[in-house]
Amino acid sequence: MNGMKDEMFDSSLISRFQKEIEPGYVLRPLQMNDHQNGYLDLLSQLTSVGDVDDEWFEKRFISMRDTNPKAYYVVVLADEKNDRIVASATLVIEWKFIHQAGCRGRVEDVVVDEQLRGKKIGSLLNRILVHLAQQIGVYKLSLECKDKLIPFYESFGYKKDEGNNFLVQRFDH
Amino acid sequence: MNGMKDEMFDSSLISRFQKEIEPGYVLRPLQMNDHQNGYLDLLSQLTSVGDVDDEWFEKRFISMRDTNPKAYYVVVLADEKNDRIVASATLVIEWKFIHQAGCRGRVEDVVVDEQLRGKKIGSLLNRILVHLAQQIGVYKLSLECKDKLIPFYESFGYKKDEGNNFLVQRFDH
Repeated sequence: MNGMKDEMFDSSLISRFQKEIEPGYVLRPLQMNDHQNGYLDLLSQLTSVGDVDDEWFEKRFISMRDTNPKAYYVVVLADEKNDRIVASATLVIEWKFIHQAGCRGRVEDVVVDEQLRGKKIGSLLNRILVHLAQQIGVYKLSLECKDKLIPFYESFGYKKDEGNNFLVQRFDH
Repeated sequence: MNGMKDEMFDSSLISRFQKEIEPGYVLRPLQMNDHQNGYLDLLSQLTSVGDVDDEWFEKRFISMRDTNPKAYYVVVLADEKNDRIVASATLVIEWKFIHQAGCRGRVEDVVVDEQLRGKKIGSLLNRILVHLAQQIGVYKLSLECKDKLIPFYESFGYKKDEGNNFLVQRFDH
């Protein structure tokens, strides 16, 4: 234990945003040990998480961390006093052959702890992901959202993709 | 040159579908040398491709092939006599912490050469991707499509995600 954090991506990519965080909270990449810091409890406010043990968590973390080129950017906000994760948003990069073998970005799994809503934390996380996506050089950034969140996301530059539909099918296991 | 094909994924995953292909065509994973076989020319019937040289193509191919766990499944149909790529569809897997650290699938970049449309090749490629996604165990499979293609995709089990919107922003480089 040498004090080094096992982080999903280089924290310097988002450090410029720390000054916008209120005292007592730290903005950082997801860490390998964040299973113990309640990351999945937070995600369970968003959707079903199910049982994921430490080993499975670490395996999933490593598969994301070790993508090359890097494809997963899980940004979290942690309570400084106990390292508890209180908000998170993920940027996923998809590598393409089209658009000059470019890449597109997707915003996924945005969640703010219900105790901390109304403090513009979701806005900050979204601005961070747009900034990251632009640095990486995506040609397109997209997300899915509930009807009531359209105005919120429009404020970050997103628009309905007119004439394009989003279709889904789900599978049980 | 030992005759081994450098394929993006294990061709046995899709070989059961070869019997549905008309004589003269081969169903297979994308190969490292498919830049020379017109893969990008085919994609240019779908959207902008731009200039991608052999080196850049191979680099992109390798980044997709070497994902671990495997995340890119580019399925192509090739003309047997000259190995020319005449159709393609891509399944991309996104690894998650939610849904029991599961995964979701996305259907991307489906294109059939305009000379070969009306032969149900697009349908076959879509059935193959749904089959692959089920084998991999995705909890959700999604795609974006033009209005006029909704009935086509509904025939494979996709539905509009009611109450969920798809928002996009684009960037110039």
